[in-house]
Amino acid sequence: MGTGRFVDLIHKKRDGGILEKEEIQKMIQSFTAGKIPDYQMSAMLMAIYFRGMTDEELTALTLAMRDSGDVVDLSPIDGITVDKHSTGGVGDKTTLIVAPIVAACGVPVAKMSGRGLGFTGGTLDKLQSIPGFRVELAEEEFFRAVCQTGLSVIGQSGNLAPADKLLYALRDVTGTVSSIPLIASSIMSKKLAAGSDKILLDVTTGSGAFIKEMEGSRELARRMVAIGRGAGKETVAMITSMEEPLGYAIGNSLEVKEAIETLQGEGPEDVKEVCLALAGMMISLGKEIPFEEGKERAERALQQKAAYEKLKEMTACQGGDVRYIENPKLFRRAGISGCVLAPEDGYLAKTNTEGIGVAAGLLGAGRETKESSIDFGAGIYMKKKLGDKVKKGEALAELFTSQESRLEKAARYMENCMEIRKQKPGMPKLIVDIIR
Amino acid sequence: MGTGRFVDLIHKKRDGGILEKEEIQKMIQSFTAGKIPDYQMSAMLMAIYFRGMTDEELTALTLAMRDSGDVVDLSPIDGITVDKHSTGGVGDKTTLIVAPIVAACGVPVAKMSGRGLGFTGGTLDKLQSIPGFRVELAEEEFFRAVCQTGLSVIGQSGNLAPADKLLYALRDVTGTVSSIPLIASSIMSKKLAAGSDKILLDVTTGSGAFIKEMEGSRELARRMVAIGRGAGKETVAMITSMEEPLGYAIGNSLEVKEAIETLQGEGPEDVKEVCLALAGMMISLGKEIPFEEGKERAERALQQKAAYEKLKEMTACQGGDVRYIENPKLFRRAGISGCVLAPEDGYLAKTNTEGIGVAAGLLGAGRETKESSIDFGAGIYMKKKLGDKVKKGEALAELFTSQESRLEKAARYMENCMEIRKQKPGMPKLIVDIIR
Repeated sequence: MGTGRFVDLIHKKRDGGILEKEEIQKMIQSFTAGKIPDYQMSAMLMAIYFRGMTDEELTALTLAMRDSGDVVDLSPIDGITVDKHSTGGVGDKTTLIVAPIVAACGVPVAKMSGRGLGFTGGTLDKLQSIPGFRVELAEEEFFRAVCQTGLSVIGQSGNLAPADKLLYALRDVTGTVSSIPLIASSIMSKKLAAGSDKILLDVTTGSGAFIKEMEGSRELARRMVAIGRGAGKETVAMITSMEEPLGYAIGNSLEVKEAIETLQGEGPEDVKEVCLALAGMMISLGKEIPFEEGKERAERALQQKAAYEKLKEMTACQGGDVRYIENPKLFRRAGISGCVLAPEDGYLAKTNTEGIGVAAGLLGAGRETKESSIDFGAGIYMKKKLGDKVKKGEALAELFTSQESRLEKAARYMENCMEIRKQKPGMPKLIVDIIR
Repeated sequence: MGTGRFVDLIHKKRDGGILEKEEIQKMIQSFTAGKIPDYQMSAMLMAIYFRGMTDEELTALTLAMRDSGDVVDLSPIDGITVDKHSTGGVGDKTTLIVAPIVAACGVPVAKMSGRGLGFTGGTLDKLQSIPGFRVELAEEEFFRAVCQTGLSVIGQSGNLAPADKLLYALRDVTGTVSSIPLIASSIMSKKLAAGSDKILLDVTTGSGAFIKEMEGSRELARRMVAIGRGAGKETVAMITSMEEPLGYAIGNSLEVKEAIETLQGEGPEDVKEVCLALAGMMISLGKEIPFEEGKERAERALQQKAAYEKLKEMTACQGGDVRYIENPKLFRRAGISGCVLAPEDGYLAKTNTEGIGVAAGLLGAGRETKESSIDFGAGIYMKKKLGDKVKKGEALAELFTSQESRLEKAARYMENCMEIRKQKPGMPKLIVDIIR
């Protein structure tokens, strides 16, 4: 597609027209091949921002993005594979809990995680805070691990959806990141390339989510489910609340510790509730049974410690030190700590959850650039949850870092992220909706 | 302005915010200096396409574009200088007539014309079809000519509004040409850089105009007048009809001939009416007298051949062969000709005027690329005007070219540009509105 022709396609979208499947395919192929200049694609992206896309356009876009690179073949794995993706949150350690539960119930989990930036590390970073844990397995090793233990989580290898990488980099600097259709196609192109039979999407909503308004979260869920359907893969979205950090722990080894405690039967209630719902849905999809029955199986796997055993198996299989799973107290928190105190009596009524994530990043829990290293022991341990009564001077959160200078900065930041009110607030529902 | 900061400005405009004067200045300075990449600017332009700009934003944008290059200093010229700009049309030879009329009435005309592409040549090309006529004068020569004869039309020298050149090239390939605020700023940045005291805009409307709908033409006129006011220069827009070619002649030497005939008192009525209105307004602005009085003076200058004498003076001063002005029959039309015939009895009811312009281009009257040369004698001579009665087989237009193959192609094209109907059509008003 030459420059001359592509401008006609920009006109079409700009004027509210609907792009043909073939036009979209050609556009993505040409762009990935470097034949459409960035300045034309950014104009197209902005036109899409304003005009949106139909479900048909969006499916065509996503499939073209998927087909721009490798598509993983999971057929060596028996049974129905189900992938899970979260749109992100603060203190989100669900994969560490859900994957073992699901595997313990006989649904194979063959998960490739991307690394990405963010305030706190991703699932791979969390796993790597277990000493020795290897996330870079060769393909055969990966498949062998899944067949043997029913479960493996590794770093993305291969060249999945390179068109998405190019488009995302462009969107990032041209003001088109927050387009819901473009977000949906970005996520789904990678999920479809990852090769699972079915997909569960955890679409977070609230102050700690990428999309903070319920309406937007619902729309994102709806669009991604439609893409999944268009691609012929059963896809379910669960909308979960991210109005406060999930659980108490934020930061890599802190979160792993909390995840292990949850699998040992002692984790926070909210973590348990969300994980059982997500695991229940994955089991329901993998075993083709009703959601309620999936949830019951998940609960049993948790109670009877079968899921905990699975995490140990996976850790052993991927070279991690199993003693840390057996005794999570071995995880060291960073040495310098301090508390954020309640400025008055009342109830913890509201948190700027994204802000808490930023504070965790300031402590060293995240990666500022792709090359930065992570301080696994840095992070935040919340002392209070939404709705908890607090007294003036009582600790709201404890901060951990390895650098004195980081502590003060993060503490000052955190102070503005928690609101104390006289009245007990209404509590958000954790599982807001399920969209299929 | 780094990449990181500029994306915030894109967000602001995308979300319907109003950009500050300083933000706009910085944007244009940085873009012109190559510090904002094209892919970011094209996203901004598309956001402007959808969100528009307030008059304040638009004035700031236009002034920043003007200030990106040279601003001509016309102060050596006595009296109030008035520039005229037309948004373009087919058979538009008004400058050739209006400039001598205005100069004959004592309002100095120091006009720099751009060259531009187009179906038929621009004013410079038309002037150059007079043998010997030089449009490239040095600055002192130009001023001397204006002081001596009151009138000079030359090619743009210097570096006027380079930001506009860069922006236009980008808009052209990114689907943002047809944004009315962006059109307005493009035109006005060049007009303001050209240094006249006051500006008259001839905003054409109809099937031969760049903007074909009245509403859009009116909006463009309104926006340009607001920019002129914001820049502290009295600016008037006259909306004129381009529902059919102006006059009978289309093509360079054909149009010069018709312009001379008009100055000799024998031109077509529509040419005369539009030119007297435009000249009247320029005189009104230059002499600070009412429009009606300006028009009367224009009419006298035309009747008494003072304007005709001015054209001769200008031609002599710029090296042109004055015998062509005295005897316009000397202008040769291209040697190969043919007629487009009426397919049935009726009235010429409608013309696709832009299409007629395209046909003139096919005959060789225009420039396909900046490097192409023009066939001065090629073009079209309309035999019928809107509302004229026609008989089947009667000539509607005569075509002139130097290449046999071009004739057929253009004739076939022309056939679809003229509509014969049984009923006599309503006639469009020539001077539709005046906006100040």
